Amino acid sequence: MAKSRQYEFGRVFLARLPHKGDLLESITMFCADSELGAGFVSAIGAVQSATVGYYDQKAHEYRTISFHEPMEIASLAGNLSVKDGQPMLHAHVVFSRENGKAVGGHLMSPTVVFAGEVFAVELCGEPLVREFDEPTGLPLWAALR
Amino acid sequence: MAKSRQYEFGRVFLARLPHKGDLLESITMFCADSELGAGFVSAIGAVQSATVGYYDQKAHEYRTISFHEPMEIASLAGNLSVKDGQPMLHAHVVFSRENGKAVGGHLMSPTVVFAGEVFAVELCGEPLVREFDEPTGLPLWAALR
Amino acid sequence: MAKSRQYEFGRVFLARLPHKGDLLESITMFCADSELGAGFVSAIGAVQSATVGYYDQKAHEYRTISFHEPMEIASLAGNLSVKDGQPMLHAHVVFSRENGKAVGGHLMSPTVVFAGEVFAVELCGEPLVREFDEPTGLPLWAALR
Repeated sequence: MAKSRQYEFGRVFLARLPHKGDLLESITMFCADSELGAGFVSAIGAVQSATVGYYDQKAHEYRTISFHEPMEIASLAGNLSVKDGQPMLHAHVVFSRENGKAVGGHLMSPTVVFAGEVFAVELCGEPLVREFDEPTGLPLWAALR
Repeated sequence: MAKSRQYEFGRVFLARLPHKGDLLESITMFCADSELGAGFVSAIGAVQSATVGYYDQKAHEYRTISFHEPMEIASLAGNLSVKDGQPMLHAHVVFSRENGKAVGGHLMSPTVVFAGEVFAVELCGEPLVREFDEPTGLPLWAALR
Repeated sequence: MAKSRQYEFGRVFLARLPHKGDLLESITMFCADSELGAGFVSAIGAVQSATVGYYDQKAHEYRTISFHEPMEIASLAGNLSVKDGQPMLHAHVVFSRENGKAVGGHLMSPTVVFAGEVFAVELCGEPLVREFDEPTGLPLWAALR
């Protein structure tokens, strides 16, 4: 069974990311500066280059895939929670290439923003804390195990 | 013209899906157990294997595409409404493969969760009911025809 | 640093798009008719054919990519703001083809809807206005430069 925690909506933002900033860091810093403990994030835009992770479910480690080309951010969806006492944005992305073909994965740095527009919603309530999860090797929400 | 029904936000959840559960069933059951009549759902995570549908718009039937490989859930977006008196989650997904390339479609079972994080919002108001739609052959929102 | 403007949630809608209507125009008109000044939009469904843009970041112009085939709308995410005094929907899409492979980009017309379901949220507050941005050549939110 899925386990859940209930929240109430708090502040809502539209944000513009800095040209040539890092996609993951820019959104994470925005959330930290806005003192969002938990949240939902969606974004669109374009990048100059990108890095995504593919999780090797047997080896329990991320493999890094780099794209050295301008692409559209066709989709970015993620959530904000807490890891090691710090706000952590967990975001997955889909990018589209010059020929329209799509690639994606777990958003990593470096991913250089060309332009980025973010919709971010604060979730008021007890933030979820990520801790090491044995079966997956991932930092997951411990309270919802 | 687009036709619409207006809602008010109700409860908001972050949920963690069970390891090795079915993606579509887990979210649907969560929504049913939480007594959500209408809602919006977004999720990210990873799967061990997946099934998506591609709708043949001439034959009026879904073709099933199976992926027997671990992939990232790069995007999952959907809505909750009612069909045959039961809550029905209609979700579309984008998965990313080991090489980063993306695939997707209409989320079907079996799709085995490796890890999954869901953002779900209750929409308070009269739930929309799906009924057979002649021009498309799909179960669509009859009240908004 | 990301710059942001704060909003409050207003009205919330589930909408059904007209069969054979244009995806971008249908949602834009729905937002205009509903007098949404700012908003967040998510949609799923299927199209009969589609057009997306890929932004050439050096030449500062969109290249158009056309798909003359039925596809699933695997993801549509976007925001509503104002350009030239008119509501402007900026949406990015991911489509999935008959073989499941995904393509995407900046949503353009013509993109012919087969079936479409939209989740739209009004953001109450001062709408953001798009103006020409020198470094990118794009119409971006001037107040958040």
